Amino acid sequence: MAKNKGPRRPKAETPKGFRDYFGAEVTARKAMLDKIAAVYHRYGFDALETSGVETVEALGKFLPDVDRPNEGVFAWEEDGDWLALRYDLTAPLARVAAQYRNDLPTPYRRYAMGPVWRNEKPGPGRFRQFYQCDADTVGAASVAADTEICAMLADALEAVGIARGDYVIRVNNRKVLNGVMEVAGILDPADPSKFEAERGIVLRAIDKLDRLGVEGVRALLGQGRKDESGDFTKGAGLSDEQAAIVSKFVNANEELRLEMWAERNEYDKFSPEWDTRIRAALLSDPFFNDFGKDKASLEFWNNRICNYLEELVDKSDIGLEGVRELREIGALLDDLGYDAKRIIIDPSVVRGLGYYTGPVFEAELTFEITDEKGRPRQFGSVAGGGRYDDLVKRFTGQAVPATGVSIGVDRLLAALAAKGRLEASAQGPVVVTVMDRERMSDYMGMVQDLRAEGIRAETYLGNPKNFGNQLKYADKRQSPIAIIQGEDEAARGVVQVKDLILGAKIAAEATVEEWKSQPAQVEVRREDLVVTVREMLGRHR
Amino acid sequence: MAKNKGPRRPKAETPKGFRDYFGAEVTARKAMLDKIAAVYHRYGFDALETSGVETVEALGKFLPDVDRPNEGVFAWEEDGDWLALRYDLTAPLARVAAQYRNDLPTPYRRYAMGPVWRNEKPGPGRFRQFYQCDADTVGAASVAADTEICAMLADALEAVGIARGDYVIRVNNRKVLNGVMEVAGILDPADPSKFEAERGIVLRAIDKLDRLGVEGVRALLGQGRKDESGDFTKGAGLSDEQAAIVSKFVNANEELRLEMWAERNEYDKFSPEWDTRIRAALLSDPFFNDFGKDKASLEFWNNRICNYLEELVDKSDIGLEGVRELREIGALLDDLGYDAKRIIIDPSVVRGLGYYTGPVFEAELTFEITDEKGRPRQFGSVAGGGRYDDLVKRFTGQAVPATGVSIGVDRLLAALAAKGRLEASAQGPVVVTVMDRERMSDYMGMVQDLRAEGIRAETYLGNPKNFGNQLKYADKRQSPIAIIQGEDEAARGVVQVKDLILGAKIAAEATVEEWKSQPAQVEVRREDLVVTVREMLGRHR
Repeated sequence: MAKNKGPRRPKAETPKGFRDYFGAEVTARKAMLDKIAAVYHRYGFDALETSGVETVEALGKFLPDVDRPNEGVFAWEEDGDWLALRYDLTAPLARVAAQYRNDLPTPYRRYAMGPVWRNEKPGPGRFRQFYQCDADTVGAASVAADTEICAMLADALEAVGIARGDYVIRVNNRKVLNGVMEVAGILDPADPSKFEAERGIVLRAIDKLDRLGVEGVRALLGQGRKDESGDFTKGAGLSDEQAAIVSKFVNANEELRLEMWAERNEYDKFSPEWDTRIRAALLSDPFFNDFGKDKASLEFWNNRICNYLEELVDKSDIGLEGVRELREIGALLDDLGYDAKRIIIDPSVVRGLGYYTGPVFEAELTFEITDEKGRPRQFGSVAGGGRYDDLVKRFTGQAVPATGVSIGVDRLLAALAAKGRLEASAQGPVVVTVMDRERMSDYMGMVQDLRAEGIRAETYLGNPKNFGNQLKYADKRQSPIAIIQGEDEAARGVVQVKDLILGAKIAAEATVEEWKSQPAQVEVRREDLVVTVREMLGRHR
Repeated sequence: MAKNKGPRRPKAETPKGFRDYFGAEVTARKAMLDKIAAVYHRYGFDALETSGVETVEALGKFLPDVDRPNEGVFAWEEDGDWLALRYDLTAPLARVAAQYRNDLPTPYRRYAMGPVWRNEKPGPGRFRQFYQCDADTVGAASVAADTEICAMLADALEAVGIARGDYVIRVNNRKVLNGVMEVAGILDPADPSKFEAERGIVLRAIDKLDRLGVEGVRALLGQGRKDESGDFTKGAGLSDEQAAIVSKFVNANEELRLEMWAERNEYDKFSPEWDTRIRAALLSDPFFNDFGKDKASLEFWNNRICNYLEELVDKSDIGLEGVRELREIGALLDDLGYDAKRIIIDPSVVRGLGYYTGPVFEAELTFEITDEKGRPRQFGSVAGGGRYDDLVKRFTGQAVPATGVSIGVDRLLAALAAKGRLEASAQGPVVVTVMDRERMSDYMGMVQDLRAEGIRAETYLGNPKNFGNQLKYADKRQSPIAIIQGEDEAARGVVQVKDLILGAKIAAEATVEEWKSQPAQVEVRREDLVVTVREMLGRHR
């Protein structure tokens, strides 16, 4: 480069893995976040905005699936210290909770919205800067706090336009999973460091249930799994017996439903016909839609699933504590009127992150969309969270109980787009065209009158010579209306008001006869400009 | 560090020069930005959000007062490329305008709001991440575009709560300054590279007029200036004659006012008494408040100042073009009803940035505040901008005319705070206290009823054992009301509703007698909870 003659032009490019957001992409996200913030605020949470930059040591290495420090973050050195862009909103919260612990109220309830950065390999639809939207309660040990977060998440989803019935929030408890691991012999309460690697593999395997299915998870619990491309992933090495215990936990929701169906129909669940295909057919039985619809059946379901789990964790103290907590959450949700159609106890949800210590939850959208290959599939997860009691302890040495939720902003936006629920419109401004450069202040005066009435409007400010360019501009801006006033019109005190939406429709669809009866352009007196525009805009609401 | 035994705890600290924003600090800024965005939107501007990260080569080295590349930005290397955090919103806009030039409408009008980062030495009140709020029109060569930006800035300031009369937007033109430099012999149109350093010093000197005063600027135009600490700043080395020409330009506004005053009072402006003190006294004459109040005097003022400048730039082509543009801007503003109390032509404004090529403008708040040392001073500048026709050219080789404004978000917020105009309240939620842990769902039910009516409320989720802590929590949250229901109240179907604002007032001010007549705590039936709370909140509106 140093050898180049003359100035080299820089490339006008977004850096790899980053993107720009235009117009309605920005305002639609903002409208959605505003609605979520309103729910969080009403729940008593306070806003917090930390900066994008943290010290590397404060961030720690809690990034999922990343073992080496600094990996996965954008970091740079400054006078011997390392700074980095935050990779989520939880690590900065832990830092804030520690730093201001003497000044903040206890519990400290905060919400935060903003970009986070991950130094990952960019992929299709995967960006290195994206938004998160979190709410957390720090300093509350009671599961009432977890319950509230789940209820708030349901309210937030409904507030942005996800209809009841189109989502479900699944709640589980890491303590129950730990109990199951204890029973399976891969967790020794006396020495938690034993089998740590195995437990990590189990956790990640369960977290992939959606993608790999029951058989795939089972393989990962055992010796390992070869994927379609032939790559082999090493498993946790559990014996068949151990894996069966874990599987029984993961499949609790489905197993229990089938058990209940079998009971009702006096059917032998364990008969040889009971294979996967029959299971699937059974699960579409309307019977399964009745769980949790009324208070009695919800109580019954909560009770059944907790009994099932209690039996599974056997005499594990931590496991039994987890089940007790689930019972409590279930009862509170029940009292508050959140039925199992909205929030349900479901042991298949574990959340991949290592730092959860108690209740975990995940919001899933249950409506179908069409994937890239044209196949229908459920939309899937848009938010998740849980209890993490050790994050603040890193700084202070004292355990601080905390629980919270993070909404995947882009995923939720995509869901709203799929449901046609995006609020922001891409409609452009009314464009006042410029026929006569010398009368700029007349045109700007028209725009001023429109704006004064709250109508989005602008004068064409490009080179006015080519009138066609002005209409092309209005078209590109998706303008609903163009205003035209040439010398002749100015002399007569009138303006032409052109309905561009109707014009486009007529051009595309109408016959010549229809065109005549529906003039897309009207001439009105200058003083009637605003009222005419308002009326015309009203047509297309 | 490697020698330390045991795990070392990370420090819970915001990195140097960064800060955290809590509660109302976040929501007040958001409320202000929302209002500005609404004005920008109504003017037909579209939102744009680029990522925080750009390639260093795209950013260029336009950071003010910084000559070396990368200096002043946070940058890091990635696979041989350098990435950096954006230091403003204009450089990313130039990149976007070049990158998407075939898809964007022309002109492209966009607004952007968000954090920018500067790798500067942190100082008191000076942070390395702060918000900017910009609007720009790219691809419009006409000064109608500059005029519109000025008008929009005035509207935006009024929309957020700066009263008319509390701000003034000063407009100047770099072309006029260039004409003056040509006349002073430090700009040779045939060889623009000559005297570049001198012109840079002149520009920065004029930009410091506010801080250094006329004499300080004069010194910097000449040999240089020694500041209070004894540090010497080298001047531009202009001769007295050259410096006098530049000074005449800088002081045009004041000189012309005095000239007009002298004319009216048939006073000899150039008499020996005409010293600084007399000037100051004269400038406080009500006569000076009359300029621009009505259309006639505004036209008169615009005309006079343009004549004054025309005379000053003599036969410089670029200078005369600049004056023509100022006349046009003045006439348009006049037609649109923006009088000189809101937007005025004032040659003392030059803006420090090197990249401006035409009209420049700056919004100043004219009301007095008290500075750190208790002295009254004018609030000063909160926004500025201008025309920059060469930024996009860096990428494409083709000149693209552009003009825009940037609002200093933190400065404007501080101004609103000083005027008591901040919208967001720090009021916390209604807190439902927990007297009986077993009845958590009753308390959460109360909160649910309040929230359903749009009232911000929460159940106390900390350890409920110590009731005093619950009231301390409500106090710290600035809660207006606490709800209390013990076993006894529950049995009787009532709740205690405690007005914490009134309670604090009574505790601070009232005599015992007054206390009796104004109970800060009432007992109401559980079903009257919501209506009682609503009424109580109404008291303190």
